[in-house]
Amino acid sequence: MVVPMAEIPPRHEIDAAVRRALAEDLGSAGDVTTDAVVPPEATCRARVVARAAGVVAGLPVFRAVYAELDPLVAVEWSVRDGDAVSPGDVLGTVGGPARSVLTGERVALNFLTLLSGVATLTRRYVEACAGTAAQVLCTRKTIPGLRALQRYAVAVGGGRLHRAGLHDGVLVKDNHVAVAGGVAEAVRRARAGAPHTLRVEVEVDGLEQLEEALAAGADAILLDNADLDTVKRAVDLVGDRVPLEISGGVSLDTIGQVAGAGRLLISVGRLTHSAPALDLALDVEVGPADPGP
Amino acid sequence: MVVPMAEIPPRHEIDAAVRRALAEDLGSAGDVTTDAVVPPEATCRARVVARAAGVVAGLPVFRAVYAELDPLVAVEWSVRDGDAVSPGDVLGTVGGPARSVLTGERVALNFLTLLSGVATLTRRYVEACAGTAAQVLCTRKTIPGLRALQRYAVAVGGGRLHRAGLHDGVLVKDNHVAVAGGVAEAVRRARAGAPHTLRVEVEVDGLEQLEEALAAGADAILLDNADLDTVKRAVDLVGDRVPLEISGGVSLDTIGQVAGAGRLLISVGRLTHSAPALDLALDVEVGPADPGP
Amino acid sequence: MVVPMAEIPPRHEIDAAVRRALAEDLGSAGDVTTDAVVPPEATCRARVVARAAGVVAGLPVFRAVYAELDPLVAVEWSVRDGDAVSPGDVLGTVGGPARSVLTGERVALNFLTLLSGVATLTRRYVEACAGTAAQVLCTRKTIPGLRALQRYAVAVGGGRLHRAGLHDGVLVKDNHVAVAGGVAEAVRRARAGAPHTLRVEVEVDGLEQLEEALAAGADAILLDNADLDTVKRAVDLVGDRVPLEISGGVSLDTIGQVAGAGRLLISVGRLTHSAPALDLALDVEVGPADPGP
Amino acid sequence: MVVPMAEIPPRHEIDAAVRRALAEDLGSAGDVTTDAVVPPEATCRARVVARAAGVVAGLPVFRAVYAELDPLVAVEWSVRDGDAVSPGDVLGTVGGPARSVLTGERVALNFLTLLSGVATLTRRYVEACAGTAAQVLCTRKTIPGLRALQRYAVAVGGGRLHRAGLHDGVLVKDNHVAVAGGVAEAVRRARAGAPHTLRVEVEVDGLEQLEEALAAGADAILLDNADLDTVKRAVDLVGDRVPLEISGGVSLDTIGQVAGAGRLLISVGRLTHSAPALDLALDVEVGPADPGP
Amino acid sequence: MVVPMAEIPPRHEIDAAVRRALAEDLGSAGDVTTDAVVPPEATCRARVVARAAGVVAGLPVFRAVYAELDPLVAVEWSVRDGDAVSPGDVLGTVGGPARSVLTGERVALNFLTLLSGVATLTRRYVEACAGTAAQVLCTRKTIPGLRALQRYAVAVGGGRLHRAGLHDGVLVKDNHVAVAGGVAEAVRRARAGAPHTLRVEVEVDGLEQLEEALAAGADAILLDNADLDTVKRAVDLVGDRVPLEISGGVSLDTIGQVAGAGRLLISVGRLTHSAPALDLALDVEVGPADPGP
Amino acid sequence: MVVPMAEIPPRHEIDAAVRRALAEDLGSAGDVTTDAVVPPEATCRARVVARAAGVVAGLPVFRAVYAELDPLVAVEWSVRDGDAVSPGDVLGTVGGPARSVLTGERVALNFLTLLSGVATLTRRYVEACAGTAAQVLCTRKTIPGLRALQRYAVAVGGGRLHRAGLHDGVLVKDNHVAVAGGVAEAVRRARAGAPHTLRVEVEVDGLEQLEEALAAGADAILLDNADLDTVKRAVDLVGDRVPLEISGGVSLDTIGQVAGAGRLLISVGRLTHSAPALDLALDVEVGPADPGP
Repeated sequence: MVVPMAEIPPRHEIDAAVRRALAEDLGSAGDVTTDAVVPPEATCRARVVARAAGVVAGLPVFRAVYAELDPLVAVEWSVRDGDAVSPGDVLGTVGGPARSVLTGERVALNFLTLLSGVATLTRRYVEACAGTAAQVLCTRKTIPGLRALQRYAVAVGGGRLHRAGLHDGVLVKDNHVAVAGGVAEAVRRARAGAPHTLRVEVEVDGLEQLEEALAAGADAILLDNADLDTVKRAVDLVGDRVPLEISGGVSLDTIGQVAGAGRLLISVGRLTHSAPALDLALDVEVGPADPGP
Repeated sequence: MVVPMAEIPPRHEIDAAVRRALAEDLGSAGDVTTDAVVPPEATCRARVVARAAGVVAGLPVFRAVYAELDPLVAVEWSVRDGDAVSPGDVLGTVGGPARSVLTGERVALNFLTLLSGVATLTRRYVEACAGTAAQVLCTRKTIPGLRALQRYAVAVGGGRLHRAGLHDGVLVKDNHVAVAGGVAEAVRRARAGAPHTLRVEVEVDGLEQLEEALAAGADAILLDNADLDTVKRAVDLVGDRVPLEISGGVSLDTIGQVAGAGRLLISVGRLTHSAPALDLALDVEVGPADPGP
Repeated sequence: MVVPMAEIPPRHEIDAAVRRALAEDLGSAGDVTTDAVVPPEATCRARVVARAAGVVAGLPVFRAVYAELDPLVAVEWSVRDGDAVSPGDVLGTVGGPARSVLTGERVALNFLTLLSGVATLTRRYVEACAGTAAQVLCTRKTIPGLRALQRYAVAVGGGRLHRAGLHDGVLVKDNHVAVAGGVAEAVRRARAGAPHTLRVEVEVDGLEQLEEALAAGADAILLDNADLDTVKRAVDLVGDRVPLEISGGVSLDTIGQVAGAGRLLISVGRLTHSAPALDLALDVEVGPADPGP
Repeated sequence: MVVPMAEIPPRHEIDAAVRRALAEDLGSAGDVTTDAVVPPEATCRARVVARAAGVVAGLPVFRAVYAELDPLVAVEWSVRDGDAVSPGDVLGTVGGPARSVLTGERVALNFLTLLSGVATLTRRYVEACAGTAAQVLCTRKTIPGLRALQRYAVAVGGGRLHRAGLHDGVLVKDNHVAVAGGVAEAVRRARAGAPHTLRVEVEVDGLEQLEEALAAGADAILLDNADLDTVKRAVDLVGDRVPLEISGGVSLDTIGQVAGAGRLLISVGRLTHSAPALDLALDVEVGPADPGP
Repeated sequence: MVVPMAEIPPRHEIDAAVRRALAEDLGSAGDVTTDAVVPPEATCRARVVARAAGVVAGLPVFRAVYAELDPLVAVEWSVRDGDAVSPGDVLGTVGGPARSVLTGERVALNFLTLLSGVATLTRRYVEACAGTAAQVLCTRKTIPGLRALQRYAVAVGGGRLHRAGLHDGVLVKDNHVAVAGGVAEAVRRARAGAPHTLRVEVEVDGLEQLEEALAAGADAILLDNADLDTVKRAVDLVGDRVPLEISGGVSLDTIGQVAGAGRLLISVGRLTHSAPALDLALDVEVGPADPGP
Repeated sequence: MVVPMAEIPPRHEIDAAVRRALAEDLGSAGDVTTDAVVPPEATCRARVVARAAGVVAGLPVFRAVYAELDPLVAVEWSVRDGDAVSPGDVLGTVGGPARSVLTGERVALNFLTLLSGVATLTRRYVEACAGTAAQVLCTRKTIPGLRALQRYAVAVGGGRLHRAGLHDGVLVKDNHVAVAGGVAEAVRRARAGAPHTLRVEVEVDGLEQLEEALAAGADAILLDNADLDTVKRAVDLVGDRVPLEISGGVSLDTIGQVAGAGRLLISVGRLTHSAPALDLALDVEVGPADPGP
């Protein structure tokens, strides 16, 4: 599966994240072990290998780590973001000055295993909805500082993107409704105050509020924590009028059933706040030509 | 359990992480929903509530989010970092301008749920070693950009800290040994090249290399991916001479057995790369005094 | 007219702009004139005075300049953002150490005159639409680096906000249509690819494309460079179905006529790319107590 | 007219302004429209076209926007900064990946239209002084954050540069004189306190103060808000001794008359605080080879 | 001797330098020794003590280090910048949380000893000129990143400031003259191209060039590497017309003789590139109340 | 002598220092002299020449200054960091656009003279220990903001590196001992609280504390301000057990004697806080082809 370039986050997002991560690992003294043990002229080649099954995401970020660290390191991929891999599969190779290859290993892998973990979990949720009209979405429950990269990984896994933050989508939640004194008034305020380029989505706690929101002109509905029966009735009520989003309490075990209820957006916080890392490693092949320090 | 202030990361680490996360969520347009729906003069109060059992970590970061966003928001805690909480427990309250309380909610919670997840998983590993001479350590397999905060959470959970990066510890790994042409030569180079303030730790793949490392004057040993029997023999071989660290393939199910083998440091990547978030929420109480916009 | 706090840009936007502007003016050597001529213990008081008629915007930014420069300077306002002022009106006072008052004068005024210029021009366009169903909007034709502040000034002037950037709104323009091979296909791609929280607005060059866009399910229409008759017919065609935005060639002389055509959003690039500054000055009153250097 | 490289602002000034502007427009989600509608492999070519008559300034900044966004975009110019253009003139072309060409359009144009607006207005003032001994200068009344770029545009338009900030020139203004207790004392303090590399310029309100300033050894005189007759007498009084600067109330209608009065520096705030943008556009030619997404 | 506030560098210069220095020392792991050994509730008090004779400079920077590190630390001074101190003199006290006092010690002292070293050396040069008409100046031969702070220290020591950088003064050096093809042409170009607020200073290699420079209208003369006799003749030639600066080969042993030659500016690179640090220390008094960890 | 690449500070350290230094010198107006006097098309070539004897350090930083300023400038070296030079020796050449060569001169030299000064002083201390078992170390008494670069220069000069900051080494000093209530307790706390990758070094004031520290399990000893006899007895006491560091009051005159006492680390603050700059200059050769402006 080819990842559409569209979802690659702006270059400055990648660069900033990579620089922070390298600074974190290198401090001002650098890699004291490698600098002491590996002579500057030594070269090596390493393979990026899967130790578990999953979906790869973050190859451009891995590459950016080495580009920032040492332009002499060459990274070549035999897979693309979005490809499924099995234990033992070789994703690509890293070659060049041995010091740089070793020094960048952990930071490059930390990005790749985290993002591949997100893509892998997303793919599992998406596959659990196969054959239905439902789509899987991420949420704003992301790792602070890595939201753009995690959203990219969700897209790679086949998920759809929700708003990126508080600034690019209107989502009237229960607390907003409470402050406004009702769904209709909250929708009215949101419509009047937000740019016309944004839809007004409203969170509802049940079918009564759902009908009130539709009547008030909401452009999308978020039904939170509803049981399956309520979801089905909500689908019937909403029809094709506006997008209907479901959230809360949806697990890999239950999403298939929910997804069968109709044309739904199912948002899953777990994709970005609790996806386990995908186990990937760098196997270094030390070359014969090591003249010693 | 009181968290020693010692492990709180430097203020600039917290501030930088908080500013990045807020910028990510607010963009330049801010919280368009809240700004449209909630009048500026409205106030509210919210409770931070546990929805799952776990160990709390990150209260100072949660507070820093609101301090950065709006100094008028007051945050008060009834627990301390390191306290265990059960579902329904109230961790503290957030009160002040309703706009600010709502706008900061997700970012503040994203930090707290992530860090509490790390502390919770760490505590489980630590408790699995109860009654043994083993200690649980974190690794450099951390979330890029959040290493200092995650290490803090590990300490809160009762874990010990490994080196913070490549710059503050010498760890001669298999690839270094291969490049150097042997354990003894690698140790010699490391000792000659690294500051005298750092111990020279060497990764070994078995007892033979372990003995070679000891003979070469290694200050600490990392035995990777060894079976229980090998671990036990390693403990006997090393004795009190230097710290012995075990890593690889240690799960919650198996750590107890390993820990029983003797005075060990057991490092667990999972603590920081795959800890699921702890489910915490903000329950907002809307006050009676809302004059409308 | 009170400015709703909602439109105040996030604090970090103000702070960053203020720091940049002060650094630009002070360099590393500071205010060499004032430092040489004014003794450190001298104090003074100054009045911010209007020299032309207009609408005030940017008082919080003016204050932030002095807060950054010297917390001992006190700024007090007798007007609020959004108030109309006439030549000679006093907007407020600045008092404190004479050095700081003089050193901060130009930077503080540069913000205030620029933003008030935007608010003043916006107000004139808004007033030209008085009594109609039309609303005035800003565009992305803003001063690089000051978009958030200029949007705030537009809101203060009574204008509505368009999307803040490429990231928080879908606007399919003629070039997108050309690449996609038609309006319908472009809308389809946009709807499929963009988050459900964003409306899909489409730029059309005439009524034919407008009908195609509506049929394709566009959520909003931008009719560019149309004559008055076409605008009127567009209003009839669109009805209440979706927002209709008009842009291009609308001046203060002609906007009234266009606005009379119906429920329109009229976007005006000039508000932010060519608004002349409002003439405001700082009149310093030198106190009697100057002991000399 | 060739722009002397001398006036190009330091590269880091351009880069910082460009990065800020792109971040402002792209946020972390990027160009959601283009990413959804335009396939990654599509390419296109666009022409930068003048829609109004004026003087071009900022071509290197326009280029820097695309260089930062995507090095694959090629920008070629058929004019140079300082050239006069008429409506319909093609300034140059932009070609490469269609996504990048479209995504960078607005930011690149915002710089070019703003700076060309400054150069255009400056040129008009300069031409109004043609045949006289007067020169036109900019002031510190600039757009916060863009002073270096605006000063470059003034130079492109044929204007002379005043001090860049408070740090690189001594200008004793009325308030300084008031604090010091007189022109002579203010000049003495300035001369004693400022580096010998800076001239001491003094603002005077009339001929009496002017003579006092000369007597006190001022290195330059700024005569503010004087009528034409006073200007002429000031020219006679000052002769060749020091530079004489005129400011305040000079418009395009009156500058010719003032300029005729003699060897003057005429500073005009309007050049940088109120120059309308020059209308320039990007006309995209969509290539035939668009395989669709 | 009171330091005029005028010479204190802008706050953002101090803050940036302090943050960099703390980040450099603390990394992300902080003060591992103090955090392990000193309990969080321990407090202490320390005295800043002189171990050598010299002139104090940098007290506000020392204070800023602790303000950045921990606002609970109180710093009180019994001397002022510019005061002479003898071995054993107490400059002030630092009190508060023991961890913070100890953690900030080295960074705070590094600033204070460096800047006091500059002030001390400057004072010695200034005193060697006592009773003459000469003044001592610093140059651009400064420590990268600390120029503003070093210039402050020079002022504290009684020296005068030269231009702060290439941007705020014109100094035509031998290489410029060579490129321009002569002193007169170089002066002409500089006068035509530089803002009128800057004097045009020209470096000359002897009396012939000096006369050429005066004839060409130079505003100041820098006579480089001249013997005493040449200096005297230069003083006669220049008279009161323009400032005359002497540089090169002036040491503490010889400056008195040179200074006696007349009204001169004597610039000394050594003040900022080779001043030895002044030996100052922090003597900590540990309080009785240490409850242990 | 070849400098091992290992000691080159991370690229981002060099880049950040270089950018700061250039910004400091150029401000936003750039090199006003060169821009006015030197035509943009002029080229020149310059030689970096030693005016004093010493050890070269910082060639990569010098190069980075020009790389940042103008990639068209070519820098070629005929020496390497660590080489000894004599007055008149040519270190290398700089060639390219004359403006860039002249504009970058001072900043590039400021780095090179400072770092070469550190390397030169270090080499003298190292040579004074020739034939002994002692090694020379730097300390944390460094120039704020330049620690990584200064440590590199120390390594170039043949010195060994101490910890880079408070974060990568445990050094229990007298104040820590006082707070903890004794050497043994302080060592115990440090060992328990610090990562196992760090040695615990303890400062002792004499032989009694030294024995206490050894008994408590200290991994290294710092003996401060001891006389030669005490040093000798300390060497005997410590033997090969742990590294023994000596500090305080060691000058070039006395270090030879101390070094003869045995296997010692001798730390010298003066290497980084008071090394005089090495006198190096740029001799520009102006080419024949200068067409004039």
